[in-house]
Amino acid sequence: MEVSKRIKRLTESPIRKLIPVSDQVKKQGVHVYHLNIGQPDIQTPQAFYQAIGDFNQPVLAYANSRGILPLREAYKAYYKRAGLSFSTEELLVTNGGSEALLFALMTICDPGDQVLVPEPFYTNYNAFALAGDIEIVPIPTNRDTGFSLPSKESIEALITPKTRAILVSNPGNPTGKVLDADEMKLLKNMVIDHELFLIADEVYREFVYGGAWRSFAEFTELSENLIVVDSVSKRYSACGARIGVLASKNALFIKETLKLCQGRLCVPTLEQIGSVELLRDTDTTLPPMIEEYQLRRDVMTDMLKKIPGVKYHCPEGAFYMIIELPVADAEDFVRWMLGEFQDQGETVMVSPAKDFYKTPGRGISEVRISYVLKKEDLIRAMEILKLALDAYQAK
Amino acid sequence: MEVSKRIKRLTESPIRKLIPVSDQVKKQGVHVYHLNIGQPDIQTPQAFYQAIGDFNQPVLAYANSRGILPLREAYKAYYKRAGLSFSTEELLVTNGGSEALLFALMTICDPGDQVLVPEPFYTNYNAFALAGDIEIVPIPTNRDTGFSLPSKESIEALITPKTRAILVSNPGNPTGKVLDADEMKLLKNMVIDHELFLIADEVYREFVYGGAWRSFAEFTELSENLIVVDSVSKRYSACGARIGVLASKNALFIKETLKLCQGRLCVPTLEQIGSVELLRDTDTTLPPMIEEYQLRRDVMTDMLKKIPGVKYHCPEGAFYMIIELPVADAEDFVRWMLGEFQDQGETVMVSPAKDFYKTPGRGISEVRISYVLKKEDLIRAMEILKLALDAYQAK
Repeated sequence: MEVSKRIKRLTESPIRKLIPVSDQVKKQGVHVYHLNIGQPDIQTPQAFYQAIGDFNQPVLAYANSRGILPLREAYKAYYKRAGLSFSTEELLVTNGGSEALLFALMTICDPGDQVLVPEPFYTNYNAFALAGDIEIVPIPTNRDTGFSLPSKESIEALITPKTRAILVSNPGNPTGKVLDADEMKLLKNMVIDHELFLIADEVYREFVYGGAWRSFAEFTELSENLIVVDSVSKRYSACGARIGVLASKNALFIKETLKLCQGRLCVPTLEQIGSVELLRDTDTTLPPMIEEYQLRRDVMTDMLKKIPGVKYHCPEGAFYMIIELPVADAEDFVRWMLGEFQDQGETVMVSPAKDFYKTPGRGISEVRISYVLKKEDLIRAMEILKLALDAYQAK
Repeated sequence: MEVSKRIKRLTESPIRKLIPVSDQVKKQGVHVYHLNIGQPDIQTPQAFYQAIGDFNQPVLAYANSRGILPLREAYKAYYKRAGLSFSTEELLVTNGGSEALLFALMTICDPGDQVLVPEPFYTNYNAFALAGDIEIVPIPTNRDTGFSLPSKESIEALITPKTRAILVSNPGNPTGKVLDADEMKLLKNMVIDHELFLIADEVYREFVYGGAWRSFAEFTELSENLIVVDSVSKRYSACGARIGVLASKNALFIKETLKLCQGRLCVPTLEQIGSVELLRDTDTTLPPMIEEYQLRRDVMTDMLKKIPGVKYHCPEGAFYMIIELPVADAEDFVRWMLGEFQDQGETVMVSPAKDFYKTPGRGISEVRISYVLKKEDLIRAMEILKLALDAYQAK
């Protein structure tokens, strides 16, 4: 009984594949600092739980396939506060940003079609693309140039008749790169000139340090080309809610994607009701959260400076960094540090970065770190990383 | 800006596509009896809400991609009570039965592969198949023979080198057909002989009237071939929870499907916590529910007997019926009944059956009815249907 070729081509999530090892050492009493996954330690707003607790209908029924109207209205109001305009008819609620990405790719790509993605990229883009037999074509970016986009010409050289879209995470996961005004304009003009879709994964939209954030939805001339992917996970520290949204002014895209939404019937009713409350309040909850992440970023870079041989680019947004370690094979090191190394009963889990690249040979000495823990934990985790590197190199 | 060919091939859900019409007439004050969708009116157990209300962790974090262990343990215990054996490692929690079906198809089929499905079939199978560019090959069944499977030879004649699986809903949606022992044995032997997967959609498992239910999981010789799709939606009247499960003893299938589970990160945490409580109790909650549906089925057949020109087969399970109406185009009639007909401010919504068939020309005069409302509502809905048919024919 064989499985499909497409599923065999898909690698295990580098963010999650070492969980069995981490479960094992935790059973032995080791404390693990989880910097492998973008799971913030920040409290989920109480209003979310409150609204769900207040639900008092006797039957937990199917919801509208588009998403419940109050949630689409709350998203519309959130966008309006952010200076962006989407009507409730231009929004589809999804099972997290994940389903939003999967559906967007399915609606615009046939098997064999191509999507350009700046590399390194969020590894799960591979899962969504491979499920639909869609090819991700990497746009290589480098730490030395702060993960900036390469020249217009070199991106255009990657466009073929099979290219259907450019997919970009901004602020970027796993790099923390925030596109500057010129880069945004470059991508905007390129999708218009080549009649491509632009899938803008903006789940970290406001997570920009030391500068104003920008959204591709500000470009009104992009209306037909733009598909925005959003989620409550990071912005409201509600990762387990699995509530996302697709926003687009392309009526055909929304109409066709609705068929997929109807196919899976609906998104959980209670989580939608809770998320309405989350979206009411971004102006008071977000600024302290952003400030906290900026502090954490600064702690990270301060600590990393003290580890010999480590190379990184200071991220401008989101809460990830790609870090080059002074080891030949970062996955071997990460596995060893998690499974065999400990300092005073503690160790650290990070994600090997190789699978965030599609180009063979890239990222082998790198890891992705999520700075989602509080300052003291980050300091201690970086101390452990330093000790682990010393011990690994001395092996 | 064009969309994909695959999405254009997908038709809108016949169960949900008339919702805009129904919303419109409801705004005008018309009461609509919803027999279009399998949304029971039976109360969701209070224990579900209670467990969610008791959740008191400050951060709503990502869950394990396989599903939280307590839920997999609760499923294991549910199966054990039912005489079926699945370990927690043989289970993957999914976003409803919908995602279970989508993932199963993706894991075993490449683009262009084929899956045999008895026809008429649950229309959303089309959405899952088309998303993965997989071809559904119908096994025609007929009302005259109670939607029984055709001969072994005629099913085998449909098998090609591209065939990867047989997918069957048992008890059946939209027919209410329950496979008898010979039919189950036929499918079991066929998948073993031809090295196919058997995807058994058993979300209505216990909904069998006047006989004992059977599961394909009883056949121990099927272990490598069998993939069971399950859900809490119907069994516990918790459709809005969107909690399903994939159960299989094929370790490779589970291992590979886990990649897709990791790709979408996890299923909502709270809904999983609530569902643990649902699964604790099937022995006391289910028998009265089954009894109620049997009563409703009997009410339906009694009422349908009184409508001239209507043809149906008395369903043995689930809560659906395929009904042939004395009209040339059932979709035109359904649309007219919903949008333009009313009796004392009330009308009825059913699903046109054409899209439950893949074979062109089949099901054009048929509708699917879900008998998910209480007795008095069903009686009134069938009265309205009779009046509407009279008025439509007199037009």
